[in-house]
Amino acid sequence: MSDEHRPPRILAIHAHPDDVEIQCAGTLALLKEQGCHITIATMTAGDCGSAEMGPEEIARVRRGEAQAAADLLGADYMCLEFRDFCIIIDHEGRRKTTEAVRRARPDIVLTAPPVDYMSDHEMTSRLVRDACFMAPAPNYSTEQWDPAPPIDAIPHLYYTDSVEGIDWFGNNIPPDFIVDISRTIELKQEMLACHASQRNWLLRQHGIDEYLESSRRWSAARGQQAGVAYGEGFRQHSGHPYPGDNRLLELLNSSS
Amino acid sequence: MSDEHRPPRILAIHAHPDDVEIQCAGTLALLKEQGCHITIATMTAGDCGSAEMGPEEIARVRRGEAQAAADLLGADYMCLEFRDFCIIIDHEGRRKTTEAVRRARPDIVLTAPPVDYMSDHEMTSRLVRDACFMAPAPNYSTEQWDPAPPIDAIPHLYYTDSVEGIDWFGNNIPPDFIVDISRTIELKQEMLACHASQRNWLLRQHGIDEYLESSRRWSAARGQQAGVAYGEGFRQHSGHPYPGDNRLLELLNSSS
Amino acid sequence: MSDEHRPPRILAIHAHPDDVEIQCAGTLALLKEQGCHITIATMTAGDCGSAEMGPEEIARVRRGEAQAAADLLGADYMCLEFRDFCIIIDHEGRRKTTEAVRRARPDIVLTAPPVDYMSDHEMTSRLVRDACFMAPAPNYSTEQWDPAPPIDAIPHLYYTDSVEGIDWFGNNIPPDFIVDISRTIELKQEMLACHASQRNWLLRQHGIDEYLESSRRWSAARGQQAGVAYGEGFRQHSGHPYPGDNRLLELLNSSS
Amino acid sequence: MSDEHRPPRILAIHAHPDDVEIQCAGTLALLKEQGCHITIATMTAGDCGSAEMGPEEIARVRRGEAQAAADLLGADYMCLEFRDFCIIIDHEGRRKTTEAVRRARPDIVLTAPPVDYMSDHEMTSRLVRDACFMAPAPNYSTEQWDPAPPIDAIPHLYYTDSVEGIDWFGNNIPPDFIVDISRTIELKQEMLACHASQRNWLLRQHGIDEYLESSRRWSAARGQQAGVAYGEGFRQHSGHPYPGDNRLLELLNSSS
Amino acid sequence: MSDEHRPPRILAIHAHPDDVEIQCAGTLALLKEQGCHITIATMTAGDCGSAEMGPEEIARVRRGEAQAAADLLGADYMCLEFRDFCIIIDHEGRRKTTEAVRRARPDIVLTAPPVDYMSDHEMTSRLVRDACFMAPAPNYSTEQWDPAPPIDAIPHLYYTDSVEGIDWFGNNIPPDFIVDISRTIELKQEMLACHASQRNWLLRQHGIDEYLESSRRWSAARGQQAGVAYGEGFRQHSGHPYPGDNRLLELLNSSS
Amino acid sequence: MSDEHRPPRILAIHAHPDDVEIQCAGTLALLKEQGCHITIATMTAGDCGSAEMGPEEIARVRRGEAQAAADLLGADYMCLEFRDFCIIIDHEGRRKTTEAVRRARPDIVLTAPPVDYMSDHEMTSRLVRDACFMAPAPNYSTEQWDPAPPIDAIPHLYYTDSVEGIDWFGNNIPPDFIVDISRTIELKQEMLACHASQRNWLLRQHGIDEYLESSRRWSAARGQQAGVAYGEGFRQHSGHPYPGDNRLLELLNSSS
Repeated sequence: MSDEHRPPRILAIHAHPDDVEIQCAGTLALLKEQGCHITIATMTAGDCGSAEMGPEEIARVRRGEAQAAADLLGADYMCLEFRDFCIIIDHEGRRKTTEAVRRARPDIVLTAPPVDYMSDHEMTSRLVRDACFMAPAPNYSTEQWDPAPPIDAIPHLYYTDSVEGIDWFGNNIPPDFIVDISRTIELKQEMLACHASQRNWLLRQHGIDEYLESSRRWSAARGQQAGVAYGEGFRQHSGHPYPGDNRLLELLNSSS
Repeated sequence: MSDEHRPPRILAIHAHPDDVEIQCAGTLALLKEQGCHITIATMTAGDCGSAEMGPEEIARVRRGEAQAAADLLGADYMCLEFRDFCIIIDHEGRRKTTEAVRRARPDIVLTAPPVDYMSDHEMTSRLVRDACFMAPAPNYSTEQWDPAPPIDAIPHLYYTDSVEGIDWFGNNIPPDFIVDISRTIELKQEMLACHASQRNWLLRQHGIDEYLESSRRWSAARGQQAGVAYGEGFRQHSGHPYPGDNRLLELLNSSS
Repeated sequence: MSDEHRPPRILAIHAHPDDVEIQCAGTLALLKEQGCHITIATMTAGDCGSAEMGPEEIARVRRGEAQAAADLLGADYMCLEFRDFCIIIDHEGRRKTTEAVRRARPDIVLTAPPVDYMSDHEMTSRLVRDACFMAPAPNYSTEQWDPAPPIDAIPHLYYTDSVEGIDWFGNNIPPDFIVDISRTIELKQEMLACHASQRNWLLRQHGIDEYLESSRRWSAARGQQAGVAYGEGFRQHSGHPYPGDNRLLELLNSSS
Repeated sequence: MSDEHRPPRILAIHAHPDDVEIQCAGTLALLKEQGCHITIATMTAGDCGSAEMGPEEIARVRRGEAQAAADLLGADYMCLEFRDFCIIIDHEGRRKTTEAVRRARPDIVLTAPPVDYMSDHEMTSRLVRDACFMAPAPNYSTEQWDPAPPIDAIPHLYYTDSVEGIDWFGNNIPPDFIVDISRTIELKQEMLACHASQRNWLLRQHGIDEYLESSRRWSAARGQQAGVAYGEGFRQHSGHPYPGDNRLLELLNSSS
Repeated sequence: MSDEHRPPRILAIHAHPDDVEIQCAGTLALLKEQGCHITIATMTAGDCGSAEMGPEEIARVRRGEAQAAADLLGADYMCLEFRDFCIIIDHEGRRKTTEAVRRARPDIVLTAPPVDYMSDHEMTSRLVRDACFMAPAPNYSTEQWDPAPPIDAIPHLYYTDSVEGIDWFGNNIPPDFIVDISRTIELKQEMLACHASQRNWLLRQHGIDEYLESSRRWSAARGQQAGVAYGEGFRQHSGHPYPGDNRLLELLNSSS
Repeated sequence: MSDEHRPPRILAIHAHPDDVEIQCAGTLALLKEQGCHITIATMTAGDCGSAEMGPEEIARVRRGEAQAAADLLGADYMCLEFRDFCIIIDHEGRRKTTEAVRRARPDIVLTAPPVDYMSDHEMTSRLVRDACFMAPAPNYSTEQWDPAPPIDAIPHLYYTDSVEGIDWFGNNIPPDFIVDISRTIELKQEMLACHASQRNWLLRQHGIDEYLESSRRWSAARGQQAGVAYGEGFRQHSGHPYPGDNRLLELLNSSS
């Protein structure tokens, strides 16, 4: 099979463990069915997501949870080891994120939306947008251990929904398109269930009583907008010179 | 009186000395009447706000002016000691701003709007937004002297008007609601008058001939939009998981 | 001739060599006809714009290309020596950009738009916006060699079009006004042709087959919107306290 | 009593909680007897000094231990809130250390020696040396909250012994003079006993079985060199323009 | 075989590719004969070590040369990806160096001497000294991808000779002991010969005509001081609490 | 005249305005007589050297004083625009110092000694030592405006005396050799007299009553050690691969 016909490689990269699962695990499961190689990456190990454990301890727990969820999907997992609330636009952040893109060698990237409920998500979005552009430039050095070579071309870039699909002022951010994940909703829920350490934290910090049910309701709400049982929304980054054809949607449609 | 029934604690935090006075001193005066404890904070001491005095000298003068204005209101004052034009999104900035929130222990925060006429205002807005989220997380360390403990919950967060209520391109940014400050306009003007050092600077750098009258006119213009003599506009940060009920407005209405 | 009646000084500052040429060289040529002194500045020397040469080597080549284009126009050229993909909002970046404004002493500044296809452009836009505000403040030190003195007042500030005139999601960003560059289009093309090193790179990284023709088509498209052969679009930064009268347009109209 | 005849103010500042106690608590106790006001400061809260507790937890414990030891002496205590292994020569480090000197307003400073067994100690020594010089310079701003004013003059500066009195290669570093602490050895031991959290850590990381006895043996060894029961060694920083007369020794001798 | 009787693990870490070979490859070859697992690490990839190739290109070449030399010995090789002349004492440098120690899990570390002919060597020495102390502390996080767990104890630490065995002023720095490498000198020379890219550079920058012969002469000179054909000199870091028994020498002697 | 026979170019670079004059102006005057081109550089403009003027104001005054002193000698002057007490070993500091060496293109460099009375002097010494090594490396980019090309070879490097010729503990640091400046002492004093702003500061901060007489006394003391009326002491940096022949002394001797 020539390289052109192999299934595209996917990188789903978001801020914290559980964000990828919440926003796009159903879509990833569909892509896995298509034979795509999938890498899940989190910027942090979630070291501030606990009121009971210290940062190193909860980080260890959550790396394990993220790995377990990725295993359910048959995906690779990597953590870029930023600290929570410490994702900023600086040289080190750009180098690490570009290295992640070069290591995953994706054809399609799914990441956090530019506007979301907290800074870690928004900063992740910007760093990944930039990294997709920088990753093919051979003169840009990531200065990481065992640096991966530049990739061939800027990948297709998609933003997931923000949490609750709203901006800072409660306004809806409509997605460009909604993927029907009715067939994969249960795997998504299983992956999400791996993040058991977050139950207490989400209740304490976010006022979310039962995060599994909360996430299912959100998937159902997005699905309803597309007339299906469960859905996940996306926007495509179409600014020059990112590829503008909707390869993700074509790929998913080709499978139905 | 149980903790639930005590008047809420207020933190009004903006970039420079005089910004809080210009944008929300009338509202703070109403809150003070309700028995609220109020902390006014400025990110900088305004060290670039002079063409006659060096940075350390004008900073000393302006800390005193800000303290005097806070004294008129019966509020605490603190300065986070950023330098003018040096507020950026970095680790030190986040730590200091989070520490400010933890020290003030606010139930309600008023801060600069995300889009305003200069970077110090916009950066303040972002840092405060993030700090409200980080302040309750026990694993996030501010690394400041005598660090205050985490607070219990994310406070209600409100943005004041931008200067002249416009964005970069002169478009109006409509407030969510306007507070009637007709009863407290004179105290607001007195507080503003404490910042006498800025008269010359505002004329030189901003082309504002008489800042007291200029501010009064702006309060009158916002008031007119609400059918009252004087008003101040606000937008609420409603993104998940910040509390979405309008506690500020309820509180103010309960007093009328 | 008194100072008030001398033609205004112009600073056109953008991210990389060739950006100024693409976005506003036609307008600069019209301003040159009016007797304006013009400075072209690039944030970087374009060190990542090659797949064949190392960063120092391509930077040397591109500094020469930018100088040659400026020579055609009769403009000064300076490079701020940021590295590609390394323009961020930090203290060093602010100091260097403010120094550039102080050295050029402009009455009118043209720069990158706040939203564009890549981070270097957007960061340039923000740094220049801030630098225009900081440049007159005597207490703000740029900490550069042979620091230039503060300027007298905030200059008029204009943003060029983004690449293809679109935002991240492919939506059009309409300009405030379009300058008719039909008379100067050929000089613009000659200036652009100085950047011969970019032909291969733009094809490889941007998928742009023939950048000279591509740029001419874009100028024609903007011209068409104004009913002229070729045009360049601009938006004015009108936020307080930047001067709000459209001095650029008045100046250009006075010459027709 | 005129200012010249008041007892001098003392700042004993070292890297971690317990370092001051180990190296100079006996001398501090003698100075306290003379009526000196004493401030004990630690650069860090000792957040890496545990294999059982996370960094925030052990830091809380150790701040309390340091406070308790200072209380025994009747001294003030402050922690500069560096992190363990994160004391470096940078702008933030200099500002914080200079602020500490300005807050304590010392006439005499005791600090870590320039060469010691680990970097935190050596960096502390350098930062304090520099801070003593910078603290009287009014143009040097510490950029800290509630900044203290500059002090009047460079204080007398003394270095304590290194751990075991040796350099990196095991060579002895002879002290300039040894203070007879036979009268205060028991208070020193009581202060040291406050740091109970370190018993396990010192055994694990340092191979020190019983740190109280170990410290007593070291005091006895230094005492023996001066022909007394217990002693503490010091070197004076005599480089220009630090005051070169041995005020510490004169003060201690005046009391015998 | 119990853990206590296994041959110790060795980490030889120096600034640039070829430094380990020049200073201690003969000793490493002896340790390899003893069954030790050996890791060779370089802080940089030597990106400034060429006047003909750009930094990324020469770095690729030199990583390959370092790997080839390590292969000859049967050692692992890793590069920490600092840039030449960019090794400084900052948080990122400490984290990376500590991670290197944790990954290699050494019982014995050989590194650059504290005083040498250039800053990269001296900074490497300090960072490695500190890393050996920090590596066992579980609360110290390296914030690297796939972080290795803390090691059990501070390893034995040895410094190699400086270049030409002299300090900044040409004074000899006598080694603590000299290892007889007469049996392994040819392998050392073969390893050194892998760094063929440096022949021109060493001539141009260092005035070293033939680096292989130059190195052989130095080994012979050190050998002569110990009455053997070829030797390599070392000093042991004996400051508290680094282990003070000379395990390296005992190990080498046990094999003769 | 071939390049080899032209008089060498000299760079005298020290921390603050007046340091070069105090430590080596007599020697520079002798070199000027030999036809050498001389550049005097100061790391800072001395912004903390006043208790009456703000930092920007005193910096302006002192740049003028340094220029006037250089004019007396017929030397170029440049200021690297570090801030007082802000010279540290970081990337920006290295880049600026290397750029200074590349701009001055020296054959001989005179700079601060590695051990001196304050950190600015010691950090200057280290940065200049490193810059001399980095300046010829073409792959090291200084990232400064109008970057100068690499120089051909590492220059001869000399350290001046420390203040009072002593180290931190009052021990003498003997110079390698003393230059007889009896013939040029009066020009040295005139140059020093240009720094009139420092009279009050040196009295206040350093306890130096009359700095002109104080400096003359020091020159006389060094002269006495060499049996001449006035002298200045130097040490040569002889570590590999800096040139080890004493070109400075040969040059001065050739003129007598």
